[in-house]
Amino acid sequence: MHQQPFIRSGGVEGFRCARLKLFTVGPVACYPEVLEEMGRQMYSHRSEEYIALHYETVELLQRFIETEDPVFLFSSTGSGFMEASVRNCVRKRMICCVNGSFGKRFAEVAAACGRAVERLEPPLGEPVQPDMLEDVLAGSPEAEAVAITHNETSAGLINPLRELAAAAKAHGKLVFVDAVSSMGGAEIKVDEWGIDVCFSSSQKCFGVPPGLAIGSVSGEALRLSEGAADKGWYFDFKLWEAYHERGVGTPMTSVIPQVAGLNRALKLIEERGGKSWYFDLYRERNTRIRRGVERLGLSTFPRRGYESPTVSCVKAPEGAKGPAIYEGMRGRGFELAEGYGALSETTFRIGNMGHIEMGDIDLMLGALGEVLEDL
Amino acid sequence: MHQQPFIRSGGVEGFRCARLKLFTVGPVACYPEVLEEMGRQMYSHRSEEYIALHYETVELLQRFIETEDPVFLFSSTGSGFMEASVRNCVRKRMICCVNGSFGKRFAEVAAACGRAVERLEPPLGEPVQPDMLEDVLAGSPEAEAVAITHNETSAGLINPLRELAAAAKAHGKLVFVDAVSSMGGAEIKVDEWGIDVCFSSSQKCFGVPPGLAIGSVSGEALRLSEGAADKGWYFDFKLWEAYHERGVGTPMTSVIPQVAGLNRALKLIEERGGKSWYFDLYRERNTRIRRGVERLGLSTFPRRGYESPTVSCVKAPEGAKGPAIYEGMRGRGFELAEGYGALSETTFRIGNMGHIEMGDIDLMLGALGEVLEDL
Repeated sequence: MHQQPFIRSGGVEGFRCARLKLFTVGPVACYPEVLEEMGRQMYSHRSEEYIALHYETVELLQRFIETEDPVFLFSSTGSGFMEASVRNCVRKRMICCVNGSFGKRFAEVAAACGRAVERLEPPLGEPVQPDMLEDVLAGSPEAEAVAITHNETSAGLINPLRELAAAAKAHGKLVFVDAVSSMGGAEIKVDEWGIDVCFSSSQKCFGVPPGLAIGSVSGEALRLSEGAADKGWYFDFKLWEAYHERGVGTPMTSVIPQVAGLNRALKLIEERGGKSWYFDLYRERNTRIRRGVERLGLSTFPRRGYESPTVSCVKAPEGAKGPAIYEGMRGRGFELAEGYGALSETTFRIGNMGHIEMGDIDLMLGALGEVLEDL
Repeated sequence: MHQQPFIRSGGVEGFRCARLKLFTVGPVACYPEVLEEMGRQMYSHRSEEYIALHYETVELLQRFIETEDPVFLFSSTGSGFMEASVRNCVRKRMICCVNGSFGKRFAEVAAACGRAVERLEPPLGEPVQPDMLEDVLAGSPEAEAVAITHNETSAGLINPLRELAAAAKAHGKLVFVDAVSSMGGAEIKVDEWGIDVCFSSSQKCFGVPPGLAIGSVSGEALRLSEGAADKGWYFDFKLWEAYHERGVGTPMTSVIPQVAGLNRALKLIEERGGKSWYFDLYRERNTRIRRGVERLGLSTFPRRGYESPTVSCVKAPEGAKGPAIYEGMRGRGFELAEGYGALSETTFRIGNMGHIEMGDIDLMLGALGEVLEDL
């Protein structure tokens, strides 16, 4: 069946002990308190215990992304929410901003749902700028929505979301935001910025295992969902709204461990200083990594000023390949991330999401120095 | 937003300690070894550790349900796989066997995907019999597929899957099986019985938390998926097949903790005597519960001979209501399941899935006797 031979070397013991220190881009290292939640005994998703957990988590998220829109806790990954935004809200045509693999995925998902896609595609490493979007909007009056990847993990680049959303709104378009690798690590103000669907995944900035998608859905998005013809059942916004409003949580079984883990992570953040404290922490970690990488003579990939606060995409030095550096770091006990898509050979990536201590960053940078010397 | 007031009574402590002994129908009580897996630190879904875990889990499942078809590990619940079967394989019309709430869901999902649905609907408590299906098949030559709920949790009833699949196959139809609450607790031979899509969820018979759907997909189902027009991206069988064959696991991030938990559960079953041992265990638990219930003067709901081996649907005694018994049992430390759908007032349900000891069954029956006396 599958062509890669079954790797038996590790066996159960192999996958039980992930001893590598993770600087991945998701799944990322989880907080110990979150892992404690993950290992608890189950209970029904219709029990009062779950209902309390569910709505408290929703409220914490609403506060975090500053919205009064309902937040749904999908039993899926972020890509499920991506498909939901298309199926529920777009009839024929939409604009997708593409400056990396995840923008490309949004366009691919929309096309797989039979929608016509207009791509806005700056050169790799460049942000999508509001004036570029203005041009596309002026030429596509019939487009119904604009999809924006807030943070493009594949290129280590953050797009100017607030300004892009404003441009789309000025033309009366719906705004969908893939905030998978930014929500939690960078500011997003859903209501103020006019975002209709803003989604993320548990396994990124919040430091929770994968399996849970979270997203806000605006009144306008819900209104469009009402008349949508081929939206299906699993990701039907109106069905989710009905269960949400009846106070019973989710239409299908909820991913209880991950919801409990996310709840715990959100409360940890509140206890330690709230979201501004958490954003500062991300900036501090990220700056420490980028300064360290520069001291080793390397530079980051995207245009200056648009570096992602949650993942650094680093150019491999002349004559070296990204995957070799990734492998070298594994040999020294650190799992970074390989370059992605078009950048897979020429870059490697260092995430700073989830459970990472400042001391670990220094150790990782020390190991990176050794790997570069050994090349 | 939601109308039910936020239940603050329990708070975090409330949902951390599910101290009730579970006889639910999913999420069910999980094995301690599985919970241990759930609490482990994360690693990448593209790492060799995950790839080894993934394909080993697939092989264990293929062996368990006796198929050479690929088994996909969806980041969703079983309902996601239900929708996938419709979207990938049915163009216009299908037959849905409905004798309870989950058969009804299959019909609802198919309709939400814009397909015409022919319902085969015996009276509640009666199984779908092969001759009934023959009649519908004879009158619906244009139907492309037959959806069968193997075990109907809402009525505590198991349908004669082997015979129903044979009838559908004799007419050249695709066979979709919702095995959510039977896979692991009752025999299913996918290849021999001619099942095209056979899916289940982690949180039922295997005693793992929710968030993972598992299902086999036949060559014919894959062939139909190739030409399907509006199948979308998230549940696209051909996309899953491509990743499966390339040896990289899943197209999107995998629900790693639940996959690790399921892997552990499947190995526990192998170590303790394999699937026949596990089926015997289910029969033994189930018989002990049904005999106990009968000794208390109660009877089970469905027609004799078609009682589910994984959940008993018990008629509330004259003058009493199911929910009152459910509440009484909670007060005594046992969480059963309430009646479902049309049976919500007149029945209650006792699941025997997941981590249940024989001694717990006796304690539960003792408590049930007290609850009935107090009515």
